[in-house]
Amino acid sequence: MGRRPNKRHGTANRPDPNRPRFYGRHAVYAALDNPERKLRKLYGTHEELAKIVIPEGLRVQYGDAQDLARLVPHDAPHQGLVLELEPLEDPWLDEVLSDPDPMAPLVLLDQVTDPHNVGAIIRSAAAFGARAIITQDRHSPPESGALARAASGALEILPWIRVVNLARALDEIAEAGYWRVGLAGEADLPLAEALTPAPIALVLGAEGEGMRHNTREHCDVVARLPIRRTVESLNVSNAAAIALYAIAAR
Amino acid sequence: MGRRPNKRHGTANRPDPNRPRFYGRHAVYAALDNPERKLRKLYGTHEELAKIVIPEGLRVQYGDAQDLARLVPHDAPHQGLVLELEPLEDPWLDEVLSDPDPMAPLVLLDQVTDPHNVGAIIRSAAAFGARAIITQDRHSPPESGALARAASGALEILPWIRVVNLARALDEIAEAGYWRVGLAGEADLPLAEALTPAPIALVLGAEGEGMRHNTREHCDVVARLPIRRTVESLNVSNAAAIALYAIAAR
Repeated sequence: MGRRPNKRHGTANRPDPNRPRFYGRHAVYAALDNPERKLRKLYGTHEELAKIVIPEGLRVQYGDAQDLARLVPHDAPHQGLVLELEPLEDPWLDEVLSDPDPMAPLVLLDQVTDPHNVGAIIRSAAAFGARAIITQDRHSPPESGALARAASGALEILPWIRVVNLARALDEIAEAGYWRVGLAGEADLPLAEALTPAPIALVLGAEGEGMRHNTREHCDVVARLPIRRTVESLNVSNAAAIALYAIAAR
Repeated sequence: MGRRPNKRHGTANRPDPNRPRFYGRHAVYAALDNPERKLRKLYGTHEELAKIVIPEGLRVQYGDAQDLARLVPHDAPHQGLVLELEPLEDPWLDEVLSDPDPMAPLVLLDQVTDPHNVGAIIRSAAAFGARAIITQDRHSPPESGALARAASGALEILPWIRVVNLARALDEIAEAGYWRVGLAGEADLPLAEALTPAPIALVLGAEGEGMRHNTREHCDVVARLPIRRTVESLNVSNAAAIALYAIAAR
């Protein structure tokens, strides 16, 4: 894995305990490969660091597996690599809405807070060619090692837009020509019947609570996945994956 | 929530540190509601225990949230309920194969070890009416609080069969009339084209490694999900959910 050197990682930066630390090969390689990503410091074992071309100017600290384990949450599978970095800058919603594509859905998450679920949704969204993921500024997780690991590199690929007001964003999305499809377990309409040939904006709420009332009011249609009534709901990332597949297959 | 009293929870049992402890309302309620489940001891807050009918003969210990937190892994969201219990007894493969149903697929996991993923797959499999989940005895996770939480109650519904030899099980499954569909990122055939009207046995390998060679040799067809080549793979539980949906929708 090689990367061109650049100026995005100064050495004058103070350590910041709140700065995200990505770990594991997939997440770290992807961040190193993303020219938009501001890198701060790379920690690794001799064995793992020997496998990569270290970007010029990036501070590096060698350590053994136990040293690295102290930098990440308990039991986090760091695979000998930890990368301290800055969160990506948000793109603007306008940029993303300028050119709606029926094969590139938007994914909106209403207060989905679990970083593993959000990460897995980002991974599936990128896999199915989504244009972007959109969350509220509040009640959504920040970039973190756990989220980046679940996203398995896709955090560097998929634009992630944080908006102040999800309902207002849904208004703009409708004006741009998207058909807004919310998922809810108690809806009657099966998902396959809710999809049109238009570009789709898929809206999912948190497990348990589902979408908030005002979010649901800003959907064009609310649909359900065709699951047995004996099981209340699916894991939200599994539900998102199914919906993204159904959108791609329509 | 009510339950009939029964004889499945003696008081003479010694504490066992390896005994699973389920936590959180979904997993605990479902285990209390499962007459096949041998219960050992219920720990809970006054508030949570006041909401349930405690089965006759079941030992109960009241505690506050901090007491309960010490019984479960770090940061596990116990919601004021922890239930110590015995793993369920495995059904036999023969029982499950006696009456193949095209709308009730089998799900086989080849060395998928992450309890969150296995739990989420059990939840989705139950949601799509799967007949059973089948794993190898070795290299699959035991019942645990984390797995039960991810399964969100579905562990009590979906038969889980552990076999010594997955390849031999796949032989028996084929003899029973199932069409064995393996998922692999590097396959050429799209999943939708790999499905027949026969009962389906869906086979998934671990993320990264995928199915072992011998497992793959025991599939009738190996197919891929229609994802972009820019993303290497999906989370295994997301892949399973999509495949279960595609099977139900065929």
